Amino acid sequence: MTDSPKPFHIVFLLFDGITQLDFTGPAQVLCRIPGAVIHTAAKAVQPIQTDSGFAILPSTSLAGCPQADLLCVPGGFGIRGVIQDEATLQFLRDQAAAAEYVTSVCTGSLALGAAGLLKGKRATSHWAYTGLLEKFGATHEKARVVKDGNLITAGGVTSGIDFALTVVAEIAGQQWAESIQLSLEYDPHPPFNSGHPDVADPRTLALMRERVYDRQALDLADIIDRQ
Amino acid sequence: MTDSPKPFHIVFLLFDGITQLDFTGPAQVLCRIPGAVIHTAAKAVQPIQTDSGFAILPSTSLAGCPQADLLCVPGGFGIRGVIQDEATLQFLRDQAAAAEYVTSVCTGSLALGAAGLLKGKRATSHWAYTGLLEKFGATHEKARVVKDGNLITAGGVTSGIDFALTVVAEIAGQQWAESIQLSLEYDPHPPFNSGHPDVADPRTLALMRERVYDRQALDLADIIDRQ
Repeated sequence: MTDSPKPFHIVFLLFDGITQLDFTGPAQVLCRIPGAVIHTAAKAVQPIQTDSGFAILPSTSLAGCPQADLLCVPGGFGIRGVIQDEATLQFLRDQAAAAEYVTSVCTGSLALGAAGLLKGKRATSHWAYTGLLEKFGATHEKARVVKDGNLITAGGVTSGIDFALTVVAEIAGQQWAESIQLSLEYDPHPPFNSGHPDVADPRTLALMRERVYDRQALDLADIIDRQ
Repeated sequence: MTDSPKPFHIVFLLFDGITQLDFTGPAQVLCRIPGAVIHTAAKAVQPIQTDSGFAILPSTSLAGCPQADLLCVPGGFGIRGVIQDEATLQFLRDQAAAAEYVTSVCTGSLALGAAGLLKGKRATSHWAYTGLLEKFGATHEKARVVKDGNLITAGGVTSGIDFALTVVAEIAGQQWAESIQLSLEYDPHPPFNSGHPDVADPRTLALMRERVYDRQALDLADIIDRQ
């Protein structure tokens, strides 16, 4: 007989308008940590509308959520609602106080910031929003995964996969992380080289800023300044 | 006034035991095709238990599902049930007959095979199961994304993201695909180099084969042979 591993509680915050890959990428990796128990916590146990045209059913309300060993806040356009919801911010503070790891993917870091959890810390976010981190007393570090003590923040969306493998290596060892990477055939070959402002075609970048991100970043800056 | 883009119906098959990232990775990319409408089809409109400790709510039953412009079958350990379910295989045949694209990620290709949709085609699957493709009259092509006519099959799990960007470029043009890649910050930097048998540590590979994949592949081979 082998002893069952000690439960390792992983809590993801879910909210309408979540960029679902911010959550589903890390969940696919982190669920394979020995003893992992995934909790998906939302304000109410009702289907959450993701940004990708499908719904996820949360496992628990915020009030009923067990204490996380690892807390993870994904991002998405819905983060503007999270930032303005004091009950959710208090949930993040309460969970973070006793969690072994406090983490975010993409604009999830802005919710951690709004909860006061980034003060004096190095952190990152989706590339279009890293300029907002200083509003929370944080310093932006230009990296895909940034670790400052027990705070680990990841860049935009797909960086959550790299983040999660980094976390698994820390918790369960490098070989375990490598075996998960192998099982997920994570040997990425993007057909184009456009995944970061440093490498994207400048016209594509300008178009995305103009159509989406400049307005979104200003909108979020305004929300943060008013709080 | 700009005309709204013509609806482009994308149908994902969902089933219990799905490797959710096989679906959620492509969904995050494909939902940004102009006019995209995502349908998540399952035998019943009841929460689908993924392999990652959370549930997804399907949008439609198989019977009620609209005709796909793009049909996508994800994989996962639950694929063994799909392969043995004649009603689901008939759904795939019916959808494939009128779909513009017939696609799969990971072991989803085995369901296409069981439905008779891989005969005489080049295709791929998760690295541990590519040997099973010939049982369906297909030829394995060693690539992360394999296109043969309107059939596009992807390798294991995370290859679904590369697959989806490839599809977007074909449907909506390369600049559109690149702008999605930029918005998802898909500039992967895996912390380890272990995402394929060709590069993984041989001990890690042997361990994974021994613990998981050899038995699973034999089990699936047996199911296929009995049909």
